Amino acid sequence: MSGNISGPLIRRMPAYYRYLRELEEAGTVQISSQELGDRMQLTASQVRQDINSFGGFGRTGYGYPVREPKEHIRKILGLDREHRMIIIGAGRMGRALADYACFGREGFRTVALFDTDPAKIRMSTARLPVFPARELEARMPETGAEIAVLAVPVGEAQTMLDRIYAAGIRAVWNFVPIDLTYPDDMAVVNVHLIDSLHTLSYRIREMNGD
Amino acid sequence: MSGNISGPLIRRMPAYYRYLRELEEAGTVQISSQELGDRMQLTASQVRQDINSFGGFGRTGYGYPVREPKEHIRKILGLDREHRMIIIGAGRMGRALADYACFGREGFRTVALFDTDPAKIRMSTARLPVFPARELEARMPETGAEIAVLAVPVGEAQTMLDRIYAAGIRAVWNFVPIDLTYPDDMAVVNVHLIDSLHTLSYRIREMNGD
Repeated sequence: MSGNISGPLIRRMPAYYRYLRELEEAGTVQISSQELGDRMQLTASQVRQDINSFGGFGRTGYGYPVREPKEHIRKILGLDREHRMIIIGAGRMGRALADYACFGREGFRTVALFDTDPAKIRMSTARLPVFPARELEARMPETGAEIAVLAVPVGEAQTMLDRIYAAGIRAVWNFVPIDLTYPDDMAVVNVHLIDSLHTLSYRIREMNGD
Repeated sequence: MSGNISGPLIRRMPAYYRYLRELEEAGTVQISSQELGDRMQLTASQVRQDINSFGGFGRTGYGYPVREPKEHIRKILGLDREHRMIIIGAGRMGRALADYACFGREGFRTVALFDTDPAKIRMSTARLPVFPARELEARMPETGAEIAVLAVPVGEAQTMLDRIYAAGIRAVWNFVPIDLTYPDDMAVVNVHLIDSLHTLSYRIREMNGD
């Protein structure tokens, strides 16, 4: 289904999905490659090429339908089913992610948190349990989780990643500001907040003409 | 100072900085382009080209010094001085970002939060004040902020961005999952968490061979 999708296109797909969904919610039925390109900061020609790799969707004189490519990308992104997540690390970041309602609406359901700190374990709410980190392996089957969100201190991250892998989880969303080492049959997507802040700092310096 | 730095290199710079700093902290004095490339998932030739655009740094028989390019990139990224930030939206995400100690250590100091909700305003701690959002413009001078972190609900984001601009702030770190419209003399760096989660979901589907 996605055999001819290139690496750069994979990186653009979540944004295509977001734009097409916004358009659909706003009641837009068709869109030209030029308009979609303007929103995506891509050329109209790049948009046509991308949509062709998705399968085409019968371009009309005016442009592309909105719904069909959106539904197709949704399937490619694996969003046509629920994903269960556990969060490792119940500090401020871990708990903020647990409470961020958007993920649940998108089908990513957090089912539990794990932490080494007994004080944080006592913070379990009615909504979500916080289990001791030492119970990670034992509790994995009952969580049914396929994604682990890593939000532990830097010094604990690699050890915890190794345990997550050994416990059978193959997908990690990493918020710890280091690059981890992991086997080829594991997928790790990093959210390097500090890198993003450094990019903003660069842009400020550039604007100030320093 | 950064006249010959390309867009893709700008995107790689925060990661170069992070790796070189890790190496320096580990006591490494020199590194080969091959080793640095392996860490960055770049070819040795790309690394040599990148370091040449930074200024060269007298490559020896073995490789590059660690400290000099790190210090140079630090200046290019504008990290040689403090940046003051305000956080707009004191919900879970805004407060988690306020408490995330890493930013402070990196010289990005949060000085205040703003929110429309009186209940959240009452949550001011001794450490950081939470001001009513209507006081944003009036309080801007006392905050001395040059970065606004946007963590408000989707429906309030564009209006708030316009107010931030009118209040004189030109740099925004946006956590709201929409793309905002803003003037050319404003820098906005987006952290689209949902896009990142969709990428992970794609990788899961791909691993499962669906």
